Amino acid sequence: MQTEEIVSLFKRRGVLWPSAEIYGGSAGLFDYGPVGIALKRRLEDAWARWFVGLSPNYYLIDPADIVPEAVVRASGHLDHFSDADVACGKCGHHARADTLLEERGLKDVEGLTPEALGRLLREENPPCPRCGERALTVPRPFNLMFGLDFGVTGKERAYLRPETAQGAYLSFARMWDVGRKQLPLGIAVIGKAYRNEIAPRNVLFRMRAFTQAEVQIFFDPDDFQVPLQAVEHEQLPCLRATDRAMGAREPTLVSAKDLVEKGGLPDFYVYHMVHYLRFFRDVLRYPVERIRFLEKNEKERAFYNRIHFDLEVKLDSLGDFKELGAVHYRGDYDLTRHGAGSKTDLSVTTTAGKKVLPHVLELTFGVDRNLWALADLHLRVETPAAAAPSPTPTPTPAPAPATAPASSPPPGEGDLKEEKGPRTYWALPAYLAPTQVAVLPLVRKLHASLAEGIAETLRDAGLSVVVPLTASVGKRYAREDEVGTPYAVTIDGETLENGSVTLRERDSRAQRRVEVKALPGELFPRVQAPRPGRGPPWSTPPA
Amino acid sequence: MQTEEIVSLFKRRGVLWPSAEIYGGSAGLFDYGPVGIALKRRLEDAWARWFVGLSPNYYLIDPADIVPEAVVRASGHLDHFSDADVACGKCGHHARADTLLEERGLKDVEGLTPEALGRLLREENPPCPRCGERALTVPRPFNLMFGLDFGVTGKERAYLRPETAQGAYLSFARMWDVGRKQLPLGIAVIGKAYRNEIAPRNVLFRMRAFTQAEVQIFFDPDDFQVPLQAVEHEQLPCLRATDRAMGAREPTLVSAKDLVEKGGLPDFYVYHMVHYLRFFRDVLRYPVERIRFLEKNEKERAFYNRIHFDLEVKLDSLGDFKELGAVHYRGDYDLTRHGAGSKTDLSVTTTAGKKVLPHVLELTFGVDRNLWALADLHLRVETPAAAAPSPTPTPTPAPAPATAPASSPPPGEGDLKEEKGPRTYWALPAYLAPTQVAVLPLVRKLHASLAEGIAETLRDAGLSVVVPLTASVGKRYAREDEVGTPYAVTIDGETLENGSVTLRERDSRAQRRVEVKALPGELFPRVQAPRPGRGPPWSTPPA
Repeated sequence: MQTEEIVSLFKRRGVLWPSAEIYGGSAGLFDYGPVGIALKRRLEDAWARWFVGLSPNYYLIDPADIVPEAVVRASGHLDHFSDADVACGKCGHHARADTLLEERGLKDVEGLTPEALGRLLREENPPCPRCGERALTVPRPFNLMFGLDFGVTGKERAYLRPETAQGAYLSFARMWDVGRKQLPLGIAVIGKAYRNEIAPRNVLFRMRAFTQAEVQIFFDPDDFQVPLQAVEHEQLPCLRATDRAMGAREPTLVSAKDLVEKGGLPDFYVYHMVHYLRFFRDVLRYPVERIRFLEKNEKERAFYNRIHFDLEVKLDSLGDFKELGAVHYRGDYDLTRHGAGSKTDLSVTTTAGKKVLPHVLELTFGVDRNLWALADLHLRVETPAAAAPSPTPTPTPAPAPATAPASSPPPGEGDLKEEKGPRTYWALPAYLAPTQVAVLPLVRKLHASLAEGIAETLRDAGLSVVVPLTASVGKRYAREDEVGTPYAVTIDGETLENGSVTLRERDSRAQRRVEVKALPGELFPRVQAPRPGRGPPWSTPPA
Repeated sequence: MQTEEIVSLFKRRGVLWPSAEIYGGSAGLFDYGPVGIALKRRLEDAWARWFVGLSPNYYLIDPADIVPEAVVRASGHLDHFSDADVACGKCGHHARADTLLEERGLKDVEGLTPEALGRLLREENPPCPRCGERALTVPRPFNLMFGLDFGVTGKERAYLRPETAQGAYLSFARMWDVGRKQLPLGIAVIGKAYRNEIAPRNVLFRMRAFTQAEVQIFFDPDDFQVPLQAVEHEQLPCLRATDRAMGAREPTLVSAKDLVEKGGLPDFYVYHMVHYLRFFRDVLRYPVERIRFLEKNEKERAFYNRIHFDLEVKLDSLGDFKELGAVHYRGDYDLTRHGAGSKTDLSVTTTAGKKVLPHVLELTFGVDRNLWALADLHLRVETPAAAAPSPTPTPTPAPAPATAPASSPPPGEGDLKEEKGPRTYWALPAYLAPTQVAVLPLVRKLHASLAEGIAETLRDAGLSVVVPLTASVGKRYAREDEVGTPYAVTIDGETLENGSVTLRERDSRAQRRVEVKALPGELFPRVQAPRPGRGPPWSTPPA
């Protein structure tokens, strides 16, 4: 689906919209509506279930999002967290030097200094993207952090955190005491990070306030045991830095075993790549052929990252592969810097009695970006022609004809017919859907209170339920399809007689008659997000 | 429990701790640990379930937490959101003028201008709270908002939102379209607000970043129908402004009916007071004798608030009644201001065809403060003497003796005895507990893998489960008691034989043998937070 179509659906159905919309919007900021925040929460929960679920010694915490200056001085953000900013001498428009060059087709611009970017800009001399004049200034480093006057004296300085990771490093000593006093220790954070982007763009891909989900795994570099054998045959689509240097642009499938034995990557690193692949492929159900691990070379990656693969997914709306997560082996950089900055010894004594300053493996995940990817990859438009050759591989009988109610229903009510014409449906995995079940009274006057009672029973069983009242059943189905509600339950005259309802599935539109009392047992397991070792069997990943 | 004891338990058990602790802390900021964030999430969810659950036309959204200057200019925060700051001429310490006066026993200081506070300070001439010198400066208004340079030009200014409510007002027009196009329309926000407090204090009560849960109910002032009759006999502990002016300091119980008919309050206002009382008393289970509604007088309340009651609860740790929520009738102030500020007509046409600029009823709730209150009111210390006269009104047989395992267990393992000595337990309602079930293998070597399997089954059933492995069962019970885990399930040799386990309840310490397969059905309903009309019967509120 195209960006404009997604943005339009997002606004119309209450997923998200530009913040402070009535004031003309606020660049790089968005408001999540009821559908969007429900989906975002479920995505965060699915991520936590998966990655915090990797070990009982991994924990989710929520550190403050304002950090004192000493912290970002120690982490290096105060000195180095900059992009190269250029302005137009004619119209005053600002842009990122690297973006301008990339838009002209230059490759490998990432990681260049402002001076190097300046040289390339002089050669290219691109026009201003706004006014077209060729009058761009020399690039200057622009620090992306939002600074704050903290406290009342005017002497203290603090910053909105530019990444969530620092909170995990600062909490390491405390969490060592709270946890099992063992390595590996995992500290996960899901929360906002803030960057004063020079040019916010691509809706959720370059925001000024965005949500990260990250786990920092602290480990003994001499002793991080992982059950690689259990996953060694998993095939990973990799584009290695060495191959890129030779001109390769397509990933190659390599087994986990070969990545370690022939590819020179540590087994703990590859093991976590496998879990990332499984999360994207089996939990979020991104098509595997759109996924690749792209290795960053020495120039592109941060100097403290010893190994860095981005997990990228190809999105039609943005026309390219986009980074949706990453695996960073950061060495002991973080604890060394914060140990020195805070004058604290952050080393620990392992169960084997060895004193060690832990290394860090960081798994990152962009929540907003992935919410966008869920729209790009799972929003589907089905035209009647395409739908005609039986979209429903339904093992159940055709829908029972609605029993005619005693009094004649208002026009448009009274049958379970689908809307004619093309339909848009959001084929989200059921456990990510904002609402899990819609309970529809066939005729409002006759069935609304019964529907409300059944909705309450389903809520008691732990399901998230709405009861849409107005419009024909077909129109109500169509509305729920657009926001990804996987199940619709329609209440009619027969429900009163024998306790049965019509259960309709979103993707196939298959309808079948089921007992109300069978619904919780049937639906509840389907809306539980997978956990490691407890998801669908890996031998048969979902299509 | 005393503040220091709560703070100590919070640090030790991973509830929360001062942010950037290794750097000496950051005043007014806290990091939530794994236990704290799980509890906070459940508290937020219980709040949303209750208040968003009041109507199908109420919605939870998540607007951006950075707002452009035009927004806070229109809302009045840019000009008026200040406290009166005084500094010590000797040592440079800063303090709030009103707090200094209140600490000297002066009443009714709230709402005074800096000038009026200055006059009182001259009369009182209090010493500096830090150095003791009587050299305080004249109060000056200090704006509490954190300002940001937004964007790259240096010309744009934005602010961290000082309250979550503005995001709801800015989204009203959008949500009108997304929702049912009917009044009342409720827009709820749960999220961070930021205030550069002059003197952060009382742990979670005066923070610089804190979480609010609020619902803004937009309604037609001529037509806001509520079923007051259904709640009219509910008794509300009220301390009215008129009575306070006459010197009253204790609340009086007044029925909802009388508050409307004799007390002059609108029925829609009283109806929502009742729901607030029920949430605090029946959902959070605060003792009703510690709850009061305190009405603010004209001088104390914001000028746009037509009616303002704080919901206050008496906390022993802080030695007084503290505001934990409030009900504000704000009139049409907000939509008028933002309509003018954004040059947008924010009036709507009701289903009756009438054009109306909605009024706002705001229900506020301090999430961090209430998390503190849950500790103050529900953390209990039980001494063996007190516990001795049968703490367990158990209707079930005494715990079955642990069957002797084939191999001798390590010392301390192998029986289900409670620890001797006093115990601390957190008597949270089961649906607020961070972890719902602890599954304990009696002897780690023999029962750990069985315990893990049972834990997975309970997780599949939607329960939150941990599997503590080390220390005696008594010690593990004690640890789970401290973090409020309501149910412990112990696995022993008999479990293998007949599928039964020992279920132990936190508060009573009662133990009884149950079938594993009966656990989900027994425990799942008990960990569901109440919903309006679906909680415990109101005639018999829980003790």
